[in-house]
Amino acid sequence: MRTLVSELTGLAGSTVTLFGWVHRVRDLGGVSFVLLRDRSGIGQLVFDAKPDVTPESVIRAVGVVSANEKAPGGVEVLVKNMEVMSAAALDLPFPVNQDPAKTSLESILDNRMISLRNPTILSIFRVQSTILRCFAEHLRGEGFTEIKTSKLIGTGTEGGTGLFAVEYFDSKVYLTQSPQIYKQALISSGLERVFEIGPAYRAEKHDTPRHINEFVSLDVEMAFIESEQDLMDLEVGILSAIFRGIRETNQRELDTCKATVPDPDACARIPRVSHDEAKEIVTKETGKKVYEINPEGERALCDWAMKTAGVEAAFVYAYPRKSRPFYTFPAENNRTKSFDLLFRGLEVTSGSIRINRYDMLLENLQSFDLKPEGLSDYLSIFKYGCPPHGGFAIGMERLTQKVLGLASVKEATLFPRDRKRTRP
Amino acid sequence: MRTLVSELTGLAGSTVTLFGWVHRVRDLGGVSFVLLRDRSGIGQLVFDAKPDVTPESVIRAVGVVSANEKAPGGVEVLVKNMEVMSAAALDLPFPVNQDPAKTSLESILDNRMISLRNPTILSIFRVQSTILRCFAEHLRGEGFTEIKTSKLIGTGTEGGTGLFAVEYFDSKVYLTQSPQIYKQALISSGLERVFEIGPAYRAEKHDTPRHINEFVSLDVEMAFIESEQDLMDLEVGILSAIFRGIRETNQRELDTCKATVPDPDACARIPRVSHDEAKEIVTKETGKKVYEINPEGERALCDWAMKTAGVEAAFVYAYPRKSRPFYTFPAENNRTKSFDLLFRGLEVTSGSIRINRYDMLLENLQSFDLKPEGLSDYLSIFKYGCPPHGGFAIGMERLTQKVLGLASVKEATLFPRDRKRTRP
Repeated sequence: MRTLVSELTGLAGSTVTLFGWVHRVRDLGGVSFVLLRDRSGIGQLVFDAKPDVTPESVIRAVGVVSANEKAPGGVEVLVKNMEVMSAAALDLPFPVNQDPAKTSLESILDNRMISLRNPTILSIFRVQSTILRCFAEHLRGEGFTEIKTSKLIGTGTEGGTGLFAVEYFDSKVYLTQSPQIYKQALISSGLERVFEIGPAYRAEKHDTPRHINEFVSLDVEMAFIESEQDLMDLEVGILSAIFRGIRETNQRELDTCKATVPDPDACARIPRVSHDEAKEIVTKETGKKVYEINPEGERALCDWAMKTAGVEAAFVYAYPRKSRPFYTFPAENNRTKSFDLLFRGLEVTSGSIRINRYDMLLENLQSFDLKPEGLSDYLSIFKYGCPPHGGFAIGMERLTQKVLGLASVKEATLFPRDRKRTRP
Repeated sequence: MRTLVSELTGLAGSTVTLFGWVHRVRDLGGVSFVLLRDRSGIGQLVFDAKPDVTPESVIRAVGVVSANEKAPGGVEVLVKNMEVMSAAALDLPFPVNQDPAKTSLESILDNRMISLRNPTILSIFRVQSTILRCFAEHLRGEGFTEIKTSKLIGTGTEGGTGLFAVEYFDSKVYLTQSPQIYKQALISSGLERVFEIGPAYRAEKHDTPRHINEFVSLDVEMAFIESEQDLMDLEVGILSAIFRGIRETNQRELDTCKATVPDPDACARIPRVSHDEAKEIVTKETGKKVYEINPEGERALCDWAMKTAGVEAAFVYAYPRKSRPFYTFPAENNRTKSFDLLFRGLEVTSGSIRINRYDMLLENLQSFDLKPEGLSDYLSIFKYGCPPHGGFAIGMERLTQKVLGLASVKEATLFPRDRKRTRP
């Protein structure tokens, strides 16, 4: 019967069997300490003599639990018997038991199979798992149905640029940039409220700490709403649920990453400012006249939100028409019923009310220089009765990054793909 | 304030506002009936005169609820005011309100954007959403962490055949056939227990009711186990949870599809037979000597399981080495520590204990005529200490298909991709 490291406290006097990885070996002559890492944490093993084991080897240890104030969790295990289940070679490509801040991101990602063993790095993905859970749970509670749509399409909804081509038997298809057309088909099918968690692809040549070419999109679409305010309300609920879930589930990981999660109740206070107001705020805060909300502006807006509302996030709505996709519902003065969420200085969500009127959509295609040919499947959604609706997408990796205060979105991606990186 | 159709019962006398799609219009001269479809079901609207509305149009109707034994749910709504929110054109490409059995699968899939509106067809995907939920919930309850890994790799784990190539900037990458290497990296990273829900791709030229080229793989991997029996135990738990969840959540959909879900408690009785025993059973049941378990054999085994154990499923384990991937842990007599699950006559799961010993893996690569070059990332998992482990993958669409008794796996896929189909 296996005991996890986290279960040792309170078991003093008992004989236990532990399984895990050798995190560190410390030989003090007469006595040796081995830190053992399992999925629950790190515990201390005590050996009479230096055990014949290399760092990262997987072992099975049987011993007696003994109280020791100085040991992690207040207990250690006096080992009677140890078996090496899988010996690790000595030429570790990454120093697993060191602070990862001492290694470059390039090296961490080059050696991803091993660097993921570092407890700080692995913590990121435990938190990400909670984000996935809370996103889905919250939406199911609101009557949403989970969908899984194809990632291969004949043509892009948002035009042909920025798409990766796939050799598909004798033809060519593309990796989807977003499940946009499918989400719209499904709210219109009668599901009314859908969400999808799946990969999305952008063949863009960016090389920045905020871009990756493959990411997981947390996608939402909702019918019978006409205002983007309803979508922001929904996102407030999602964010509260995620922040609450992380606080309840991942305190150990937050401590490991030295991160703090916003107060779930503060999400309701996230300021909502129009794009025009946002530009004024940025101009005022930075002392520079701005015409677009660039990354510096995104940071300034979040700082301003923290100052004025006590929360490091801001919704910006009513973006100009030209800066949003053709399916975005227009509003007065060449604006749109659209919004972004900026969180800790980074855009993590983009959403809008979509055009649900067939004639308006055809007109908008023209004004975006797009042709209805090739979009007939998409257009059929609207030709045969489509409710008013809208939706948004949260970038899973960006949200993880900002929750944990990481410098690059690649740190929040298990196996990131960028222009140069296609392995491991 | 919107009322859903399912909420009408018990509201007799109240004025309500309904939103939904016009499912059917019946004009009886002095009075007209409109069946209104929303996400909760179908309800009856009564009009004094024939309303000016086409089938599938989206409407908003205000009226008074009135008891009527003959109406669905025992109530109907006497409409005072109706607004067409989005009018449907008359040339519907698919008869939404008819039994889909009257239309060919080709036509259903060609007109997917509209055929999904059919309540029977849409039911399939409500059940699929429950499968996704219960799979994840059960595994989280067992200490599993959800992961999201890249679907783009430089080379395939299982050799280069059967892979779709992607034009990735100036290089070429491939769509993953399974998250195999990543699952193994992550159990070995210290998560120990992981699951992933994501797309998987097979560039195979099959054209059968059991094959699609893109599917959703429900993937599981678990460390510190040495027997494939542990994996079957885990899958029994998953299946019980899924069947229970569907019974609790989707009775309406099961009725609509005329489907029944196996007793959750019966999963523990699923027979477990070796590949050799399975062949004998098939030979005996079909009267034909068999050397492989082909589709006919899979059906015979499930019939046999129903007869002998009262459950339409069978685990087959100890497959010969040559029929399993190189990473499968070998067993005596050229067998492997592997298993499949057959459910209602179809293989829905394939799994195994994996090789976790570096030297054994190198040897096995040779005997499979594979080269360690290009697999260095994969091999590093094992070179630096890897616990004994195993895992499996359930095909989401196949499981949905068999739960609902559908003829083709494509019916259980929102937007199926096969050799000829790349739209919508």
